[in-house]
Amino acid sequence: MTWALALDLLGTFFFAISGSLLAAHRGYDIVGSLLLGSLTGLGGGVIRDLIIGTPPVAFDKPIHLIAPVAAAILVFFFAHRSERYSRPLLIFDAGGLALFCTTGTIKALESGMNPVAAVLLGVTTGVGGGLLRDVVANRDPQLFTSDDLYAVPAFLGAIIVATIWLTPLANVFSALIGAVVVFVFRVLSLRFRWHIPHAHGRAGASGHDLRLD
Amino acid sequence: MTWALALDLLGTFFFAISGSLLAAHRGYDIVGSLLLGSLTGLGGGVIRDLIIGTPPVAFDKPIHLIAPVAAAILVFFFAHRSERYSRPLLIFDAGGLALFCTTGTIKALESGMNPVAAVLLGVTTGVGGGLLRDVVANRDPQLFTSDDLYAVPAFLGAIIVATIWLTPLANVFSALIGAVVVFVFRVLSLRFRWHIPHAHGRAGASGHDLRLD
Amino acid sequence: MTWALALDLLGTFFFAISGSLLAAHRGYDIVGSLLLGSLTGLGGGVIRDLIIGTPPVAFDKPIHLIAPVAAAILVFFFAHRSERYSRPLLIFDAGGLALFCTTGTIKALESGMNPVAAVLLGVTTGVGGGLLRDVVANRDPQLFTSDDLYAVPAFLGAIIVATIWLTPLANVFSALIGAVVVFVFRVLSLRFRWHIPHAHGRAGASGHDLRLD
Repeated sequence: MTWALALDLLGTFFFAISGSLLAAHRGYDIVGSLLLGSLTGLGGGVIRDLIIGTPPVAFDKPIHLIAPVAAAILVFFFAHRSERYSRPLLIFDAGGLALFCTTGTIKALESGMNPVAAVLLGVTTGVGGGLLRDVVANRDPQLFTSDDLYAVPAFLGAIIVATIWLTPLANVFSALIGAVVVFVFRVLSLRFRWHIPHAHGRAGASGHDLRLD
Repeated sequence: MTWALALDLLGTFFFAISGSLLAAHRGYDIVGSLLLGSLTGLGGGVIRDLIIGTPPVAFDKPIHLIAPVAAAILVFFFAHRSERYSRPLLIFDAGGLALFCTTGTIKALESGMNPVAAVLLGVTTGVGGGLLRDVVANRDPQLFTSDDLYAVPAFLGAIIVATIWLTPLANVFSALIGAVVVFVFRVLSLRFRWHIPHAHGRAGASGHDLRLD
Repeated sequence: MTWALALDLLGTFFFAISGSLLAAHRGYDIVGSLLLGSLTGLGGGVIRDLIIGTPPVAFDKPIHLIAPVAAAILVFFFAHRSERYSRPLLIFDAGGLALFCTTGTIKALESGMNPVAAVLLGVTTGVGGGLLRDVVANRDPQLFTSDDLYAVPAFLGAIIVATIWLTPLANVFSALIGAVVVFVFRVLSLRFRWHIPHAHGRAGASGHDLRLD
């Protein structure tokens, strides 16, 4: 097994756990849990591969199916039905984001994309699975509504990876460094509720009361 | 017209009816009905063809457009605006699921995919159209929230078709046999409310009160 | 810069403004505004290019990223947080619809698609970005729920462009003519609340009370 495949499987597993946890919280059955986990874990990579123009690895290499199956089984046996589902979901989601935005950037660069497009595709890969999960589960996407930073760490990680790629230092550890930066940044932003300005720049405009429309 | 095309058109028609019925129930206009029917009927096949890497037949062969047009016209003239819209929607949806999950598996196998990937793509094709319909109409997907079996019949049908494919018995009737099994299994699960365990394995955990988050 | 690229960038900019305006109204942060604008502006074109089978221009030519960045900045500085967000959103959305449904039709014809498929792909390109915006922002798609005409102008524009294409008169102005027709038609339908029959043909059936299911 190559490093790239190992990181891909780990990212798939993390995202799949987040999908299966949401399914458990919503009261879906175990097949719904497997399907939502699979969509979350494999969806970003399928979008990535369709845009690059290669056969989606989720279908090309059946080993990728092991991750969502394992995630659904783990959630079935170990997920407590409690108020605490959202924290583990956030942590596993952060792990998936970290791994997919860096490996997505590298796959895009390896396919010959320019660095700007590679960063964009890395971010798309990283946020894609979670976005599909939230859209399909009919909830406001975490990507947009969180009071913390989600896409910013992904952009930073993708830029780090693409920058290292342009130097002679590029090797397998670039992805790991990028992933660790994204994960730590994301978790710190959750812990300390870091945030950035709202989409309209007017002073005194609290966005919170606008969310109820 | 080949058998494969006939089954494809019939599945498209069944799914399109389900989409147009939902549109009628929601008070959409006839163009919205045509569009939601088209998305439901053609969406799963477009996803299938993008993943296989062939030009989507919905665009490649305009004959596929006849099915959603016919469905929108039929719904316009014959759909009563009554409480009873949901049962016909479920039956037509079951017909689309049955045909697409089996023909999707066969197309995947014909394109050279391994049997495991072909089963996965068959299920994706079968559930894809209905999932797009529910996501776009902004409702909880039937795939996840139903109290009956939806993906299980699809998996079973895809596995039957892929298994027959590996034997010398494979012919056009494999798809028909698979489709009939899926349809009957799905309708029986609706009738008798068959279900499987929830995504968390704790005893006493009724998922229903969790759906309100 | 070619005419085709200029029209593509302008359409991307219009749709991106509509996405960023919705993000501002929802209280998303500036990165969420950039992402929703990018998805709205670039989404239809990515779907179009995946179906045609060419590398998506949004990733292939980084110049396309300028439009959503400019849109997010403009919305940040100039969007008032007022009740009036919906009218500018509708106007910019109409501009994006007009440009994408005509350029989408032309790109499909240039790739060798038959005219019927090209019209379908033009409409898909035109309505795709706005549909993704509404689905991801978890609201009922404007495409279906509006009391005015949305897909009808897109179909008309795509048919005009495809018809001119079949004559010796085809040139760059076909796209412009098609786009102007779509835009004016769409805006007039908004102004005068033009509408067409509902999806079920029964007299006395007001669809409005059905939307609450």
